[in-house]
Amino acid sequence: MTNRYPTHLLKLIDVLRHLPGVGAKSAERYAFEMMDWEPSQLSEMAAIIASVPTHLAICQECGCLGEPGHCVFCKKNTISKTLCIVAAPRDVFAIEATHEYHGYYHVLGALLSPIDGIGPDQIDIEKLKKRIQTLGIEEVVVALDSTLQGDATSLYLKQELIPLNLKISRLAFGLPMGSSLDYVDGGTLARALTARGNF
Amino acid sequence: MTNRYPTHLLKLIDVLRHLPGVGAKSAERYAFEMMDWEPSQLSEMAAIIASVPTHLAICQECGCLGEPGHCVFCKKNTISKTLCIVAAPRDVFAIEATHEYHGYYHVLGALLSPIDGIGPDQIDIEKLKKRIQTLGIEEVVVALDSTLQGDATSLYLKQELIPLNLKISRLAFGLPMGSSLDYVDGGTLARALTARGNF
Repeated sequence: MTNRYPTHLLKLIDVLRHLPGVGAKSAERYAFEMMDWEPSQLSEMAAIIASVPTHLAICQECGCLGEPGHCVFCKKNTISKTLCIVAAPRDVFAIEATHEYHGYYHVLGALLSPIDGIGPDQIDIEKLKKRIQTLGIEEVVVALDSTLQGDATSLYLKQELIPLNLKISRLAFGLPMGSSLDYVDGGTLARALTARGNF
Repeated sequence: MTNRYPTHLLKLIDVLRHLPGVGAKSAERYAFEMMDWEPSQLSEMAAIIASVPTHLAICQECGCLGEPGHCVFCKKNTISKTLCIVAAPRDVFAIEATHEYHGYYHVLGALLSPIDGIGPDQIDIEKLKKRIQTLGIEEVVVALDSTLQGDATSLYLKQELIPLNLKISRLAFGLPMGSSLDYVDGGTLARALTARGNF
């Protein structure tokens, strides 16, 4: 069906397919919708996309996302000597939104995953150790996914950071808020039981 | 959560939400994925989007989508005096892909829908009648959706075109190919029974 489309429409569909989770059908739907847009709307979208590298950058120091040359997460006055280790820049915003954490961040950028060829070499552990020393960090909060990769990376970090004589903590595991026991998987329930606390 | 995002990221999320069916969560997902793209990839996408009005246009004559000033559907040598009426430019490509039709097209651009304020005034019936006469059309194929709006528009077209003394046909209704009777709705089954043919 697509082989009859005009060349530029095919190009547009093709470029939209690079978005995550967007297949041929969704890309076509987006492209046909865009056919109905005003030229000004199209050029506004194009300008915003093209200027992403000018307005957004990953902080070389902590790996968080922000404006180039100005990292709000590095520059804010932290009231604690705490460093939170996350996998991706996006996780930082999720943690900030809780208003429960007021310390530094460190974005790893990857989780250990031998099956995808991601080993300890892809994680710059020396940079992390150096930051911990420079900032005088006393507690490290490991805030990684509760997946196989997240668990492996957490253990690796723990093993590497133990010699630095820090407090190392990891996010708690248990029932998600508002969950019903019927719908919670066995693994979560087992961890919630093991980690049960006084009430 | 989003209120902590850098301004340009919010702008990007906002513009992506204009795509059909894309809500806040999907737009965020797209935006964060785009953060990982190379600047060249971003500028390529931007260039393609911005140049849509230069490379793609709706034919003033038939309403089909094509390159500006050159409509393949108007210019191709038709071997029949047939005109196929569809609702949207996209439908033309679907019909072309069947290789079962070799005539002219006419894109209505809208279906009658009083609830959305779309009445006969939004359908340029005079333009359609003029084209039918100019091209010497002998058969009109009404290829509209089998919805309330499609049915209403088909009846309206039939009523308007009867005085022109043409053959007027509509797409057949019945079981979709590969369907199982268990899963076909009652309306479709009823129409398939009414329109049953020799076997």
